[in-house]
Amino acid sequence: MHTIGVIGLGVMGSNLALNMANNGEQVAVYNYTRDLTDQLVQKLEGQSITPYYEIEAFVQSLKTPRKIFLMVTAGKAIDSVISTLVPHLEEGDIIMDGGNSHHEDTERRYDELKSKGIGYLGIGISGGAVGALTGPSIMPGGDKEVYDKAAPILTKIAAQVDGESCCVYIGPKGAGHFVKMVHNGIEYADMQLITEAYTFLRERLGLSVEEIADTFDTWNQGELKSYLIEITAEILRKKDDRTDLPLVDVILDKAGQKGTGKWTSIQAIDNGIPTSIITESLFARYISSLKEERTKAEKILAGPDKNQPQLDKNVWIDYVRQALYMGKVCAYAQGFTQYKMTSELYGWNLPLKDIALIFRGGCIIRANFLNVISEAYQEQPNLPNLLISPYFAEKVIDYQNGLRKVVCEGIQAGISFPCLGASLTYYDSYRTGTSHASLLQAQRDYFGAHTYERRDLEGIFHTNW
Amino acid sequence: MHTIGVIGLGVMGSNLALNMANNGEQVAVYNYTRDLTDQLVQKLEGQSITPYYEIEAFVQSLKTPRKIFLMVTAGKAIDSVISTLVPHLEEGDIIMDGGNSHHEDTERRYDELKSKGIGYLGIGISGGAVGALTGPSIMPGGDKEVYDKAAPILTKIAAQVDGESCCVYIGPKGAGHFVKMVHNGIEYADMQLITEAYTFLRERLGLSVEEIADTFDTWNQGELKSYLIEITAEILRKKDDRTDLPLVDVILDKAGQKGTGKWTSIQAIDNGIPTSIITESLFARYISSLKEERTKAEKILAGPDKNQPQLDKNVWIDYVRQALYMGKVCAYAQGFTQYKMTSELYGWNLPLKDIALIFRGGCIIRANFLNVISEAYQEQPNLPNLLISPYFAEKVIDYQNGLRKVVCEGIQAGISFPCLGASLTYYDSYRTGTSHASLLQAQRDYFGAHTYERRDLEGIFHTNW
Repeated sequence: MHTIGVIGLGVMGSNLALNMANNGEQVAVYNYTRDLTDQLVQKLEGQSITPYYEIEAFVQSLKTPRKIFLMVTAGKAIDSVISTLVPHLEEGDIIMDGGNSHHEDTERRYDELKSKGIGYLGIGISGGAVGALTGPSIMPGGDKEVYDKAAPILTKIAAQVDGESCCVYIGPKGAGHFVKMVHNGIEYADMQLITEAYTFLRERLGLSVEEIADTFDTWNQGELKSYLIEITAEILRKKDDRTDLPLVDVILDKAGQKGTGKWTSIQAIDNGIPTSIITESLFARYISSLKEERTKAEKILAGPDKNQPQLDKNVWIDYVRQALYMGKVCAYAQGFTQYKMTSELYGWNLPLKDIALIFRGGCIIRANFLNVISEAYQEQPNLPNLLISPYFAEKVIDYQNGLRKVVCEGIQAGISFPCLGASLTYYDSYRTGTSHASLLQAQRDYFGAHTYERRDLEGIFHTNW
Repeated sequence: MHTIGVIGLGVMGSNLALNMANNGEQVAVYNYTRDLTDQLVQKLEGQSITPYYEIEAFVQSLKTPRKIFLMVTAGKAIDSVISTLVPHLEEGDIIMDGGNSHHEDTERRYDELKSKGIGYLGIGISGGAVGALTGPSIMPGGDKEVYDKAAPILTKIAAQVDGESCCVYIGPKGAGHFVKMVHNGIEYADMQLITEAYTFLRERLGLSVEEIADTFDTWNQGELKSYLIEITAEILRKKDDRTDLPLVDVILDKAGQKGTGKWTSIQAIDNGIPTSIITESLFARYISSLKEERTKAEKILAGPDKNQPQLDKNVWIDYVRQALYMGKVCAYAQGFTQYKMTSELYGWNLPLKDIALIFRGGCIIRANFLNVISEAYQEQPNLPNLLISPYFAEKVIDYQNGLRKVVCEGIQAGISFPCLGASLTYYDSYRTGTSHASLLQAQRDYFGAHTYERRDLEGIFHTNW
């Protein structure tokens, strides 16, 4: 009998199946078309993976309670697979969805299956194809007792950092997919911040692509050390075979997206959570996709004088490093605020400390500084915002000068920094105890009688302006 | 027999009923509780308004095809009123919803009622209580032939500017409510931009509230002339009776919102439309509501040196004026881009020129510069973006210097300008023909095999990084 079954044998599903087999599981696999199954079989090097071409035989081959892992395109395909599976399952069996499903879909499926006695886990997985094979970051959501049954396998196939598995129980229902979704939102912001740092080094400081690769390599030795910084250096060193130019200069400047960043922003906006940096990173992709319009606008809309004073490279490279680090802190502060506020709203009790820990390995945003984030939540589980944790407060107070300088230089040179700029705006807004939002509230009361509160008296007030 | 019926007699509904009666209509009114009906009756000064306390008698009193105007809280109340009405109606009768319904709800109701032979118009109305009485801006959506039957009343009760009614047919189904929704999003941005200009004048230039009121009055003589500038000056002159302070300084700095700005951002994000300025204005309200956290953070997170060099007031007041004007242009450019892209997406054929025209009177964002916007679309109905119309291109090229200076000064002084900053970011992003979004796309291909396009060759590419 097999200890686990995997349905959906694209790159991610195949690699997860191999990962499970490499970790001693007896794996049954099934794909709704035969070709992908055959491809996986050809890749096998003695691993215990048995292909099935009929769903019933696949299910029957599994030890009860059955554990079935879906790695199928998010959306209707999931519902379709589930409805095919259910007639063959028994009470106590467990279905796990490892794709990028929307957490609300996961909750709907969870409820439906629970009523049938079948356990359902919505599992966020990050790490790309390589991570799936060698150990991704795993974010499981659903009933704790259902998770406990799948945990021995999941914790084993996850990335391991300092002897700890990058898989912990996240929370009920859609919590796992939700945490993965916001992870991707943070990832969008992180990538955009890196792109802006790169843009400054290249356009304003005039560094060559090679010099910037060196700079990123150097940064990757320090507190910025992370997967995204590391691969950026590698990307920048890659030459295009056809033109011998840096490949990055040959790639069209239109950035795509597949939905999770968009969902992150929508969920935040819908629930009153300020995630401006994450959202600006999304808008930056949207504007990038308006390539034709931008090309036209460039000829019409002049910017400031292109002859800007030369800057001292060494001094300014470090300002950029500070700006990037502080931007990252602000972006992660927003993402973790989204976890915190949503957790309170939905009653999920999300383990912020553990979420930071499992992001340390396997996933795309893995970075050394997640250790510090985790420590911040360990010290203060109810920390309202990462920015005010002692460690990060000291950092951002120190680094704000670099961020201010870089954003201002960009503004004067006509270079746009959507996320660096939004980071600074967020920082300054958040640390303004008394703002002039009172004027907004006065306007609302003036034209719409929306009322206001006072600073000196309790109650709700309206003025006949 | 009555020529129109109004259901829902809150401030807006009562005032619209009075407006209709003042314009010669025979109005029947109904409210589901008796008190509001009685209040309206007491206010009557000979207008032809007849109160009904039974829905059936109300309906029977209307001339066929009946025209029934709902001014009921958006949401389930609308569905409830409709289901109460329908059994009493005949084919060809018309229901109009004048509230802030979500355009998708309107489309659902439109479809349901159409299948029963009943006409349904979703009507955006802006102007607050005063506008409802004296002439609001009216944005009707639904079947054109249904609108044509209601048009004689609607065009008459709308604001009139230069002899033109601020009511034109917007488009099918939910188009009217959609246009109103984005109107509100633009309004959020406009209010926030004004608040930021005020913040700069007060915090950085050290002007008194009185001096700022004078400044807004002066601005209201020029190209910034608009309702929101006008009422801001009035607001700033208002003293608090209790403390004798400017009332604005007594109002708590927590800004509320009622959903339409949020819907605007969500619709834009969901459809790939960059509306960063509108969205930042929403986030600014969200952060304002975190009053307790901000108060705490202020004590922890230091900003830059408070001793900033003194600025020449007269020179800088004009920079602020330029910054505000350019911010407005960028915000309206985003809102009208949302109209354009949505219109293409939904096949609505929205009349951008006319939308700008009906915003000139009655509504909250009424402003002189809507004439120029309308002219821009009259000259180029397919204008991709307001920024590149000859008039606005010249303006923003001229004013960007002011905007850049103000945002940089804010950054150096630690004052946050979410919308002024986002405006500049938008301008510089939009006019960048070739950006470094290629790095984002390279990263996506590196870790997720998401592929990319090239600048020099057709096709889709993937690199084994």
